[in-house]
Amino acid sequence: MKLIRHGDIYKEKPGVIIGDVQYDASAFGEDFNEAFFETDGLERLKKFIEENKAELTPLSEGTRLGSPVARPSKILCIGLNYADHAKESNAALPPEPVLFMKSTTSLVGPYDDIVIPKNSVKTDWEVELAFVIGKKASYVEESEAMDYIAGYCLHNDVSEREFQLERSGTWDKGKGCDTFAPVGPFLATPDEVGDPHQLRLWLTVNGRTMQDGNTRDFIFNIPFLVSYLSQFMTLLPGDIISTGTPKGVGLGMNPPVYLKPGDVVELGIDGLGSSKQTVKAYAKN
Amino acid sequence: MKLIRHGDIYKEKPGVIIGDVQYDASAFGEDFNEAFFETDGLERLKKFIEENKAELTPLSEGTRLGSPVARPSKILCIGLNYADHAKESNAALPPEPVLFMKSTTSLVGPYDDIVIPKNSVKTDWEVELAFVIGKKASYVEESEAMDYIAGYCLHNDVSEREFQLERSGTWDKGKGCDTFAPVGPFLATPDEVGDPHQLRLWLTVNGRTMQDGNTRDFIFNIPFLVSYLSQFMTLLPGDIISTGTPKGVGLGMNPPVYLKPGDVVELGIDGLGSSKQTVKAYAKN
Repeated sequence: MKLIRHGDIYKEKPGVIIGDVQYDASAFGEDFNEAFFETDGLERLKKFIEENKAELTPLSEGTRLGSPVARPSKILCIGLNYADHAKESNAALPPEPVLFMKSTTSLVGPYDDIVIPKNSVKTDWEVELAFVIGKKASYVEESEAMDYIAGYCLHNDVSEREFQLERSGTWDKGKGCDTFAPVGPFLATPDEVGDPHQLRLWLTVNGRTMQDGNTRDFIFNIPFLVSYLSQFMTLLPGDIISTGTPKGVGLGMNPPVYLKPGDVVELGIDGLGSSKQTVKAYAKN
Repeated sequence: MKLIRHGDIYKEKPGVIIGDVQYDASAFGEDFNEAFFETDGLERLKKFIEENKAELTPLSEGTRLGSPVARPSKILCIGLNYADHAKESNAALPPEPVLFMKSTTSLVGPYDDIVIPKNSVKTDWEVELAFVIGKKASYVEESEAMDYIAGYCLHNDVSEREFQLERSGTWDKGKGCDTFAPVGPFLATPDEVGDPHQLRLWLTVNGRTMQDGNTRDFIFNIPFLVSYLSQFMTLLPGDIISTGTPKGVGLGMNPPVYLKPGDVVELGIDGLGSSKQTVKAYAKN
């Protein structure tokens, strides 16, 4: 299945993609949130689609897509999980996964604008494969870890490098700004994806290819990450975990290149669709 | 007002403290969560108490207290906000606030057990003054920052020093373990607290005083912190922000001293009550 959420931000309704068509599934009556995943929602949704497929209405053209997963308890991210990106960042290869967190207030839809924060001069892109937790995970064995995954989605781990690296403290300051986590277009269940360790992922800025990698180059693979993270905290259903970015971020260029208002970022992953964000300057509402 | 939540974990009901008596306020019908704070819940609660004070029932002895605030969108913490603690940690005085995040799955009640994670050898304590955001805060001016505070509470920012400092990446790995954020006993509205920059805070382990500080020694004060953090992300109603710990953590001892099963940690802040946690080893449920 391919799950979407559509409509105004914070008021999204459930939907599904069948073939290439986006359908409204408001009649399903549940949001794709912690409670949904915790109570076998994917099974209920599957049954709902089987029974109601003929009555589903396609979305009107131009309908906004939100993040395919509602605001979770947490967004965990792995840093430096591709050797080529660690090198371009002048960072040593991590002996174990590097963890940081994104504020969940950063979550937006796949075609929403990226807003450059006030006083930002180093807003950067990072195409990433994210996965979503399907059931509560604490001290999970690596051999059982894949059972804890509800599905996969595309994530742009937008990052402000000055806030992240030059403003004291941990990376979190530069990772959780509003609009810094465009996720989607859809959440694909594992059966749709095949081997998540053989997916090409790419990102362009204004049509120019900046990142073109493959998840086969992960330093730490997904079952290891699930098991590892679950040693430090309980992962809840609906939690989003992002697996790191390959080479080609703005920070790694010589000289570095950062986003400016008007830039258009497009990104995609095999089997998980593509997303597109326009960069805007911050303006008070 | 002094707000409490009581009952089984994740099923807590609202309550209030009047004088020294804890009362059930289930009839109020709302949890103290994001929606409550966002919609002037404190005003509604005040009115509810005025109108129903005579009918409120005291809690039965032994009733569990939960965190006085429901699981928020985020728990933000300030590191190294007291000069004496920075010194004992062998850390430089930060030129601007050090930010890290605690996973919200770490949130527990004030008298719940602290569970030492599997493979932990350096679980440590940190008494802190926390405040709770009352309304959405983005790019807030320092002069208006205090209007964004719903109230104050006591927080033990439990920390695993090996996970935090020796296991790659940011501090988040050692800060968000389950049970690592005992909060409460109550949330006090600002009128109950007076000047939050003149509060003594203390912590004992097995009756021995380990920390005894005063919020007057903050490097960065509360209006500055609200304004500062709101430059990096939107703070949501109900978000918990913890202001750092004074000298006297286990890491700072020579040699360092860490928590072991059976230890009893007690902590308190002027006007915000005290809490008490017993330390347990992890055991699979």
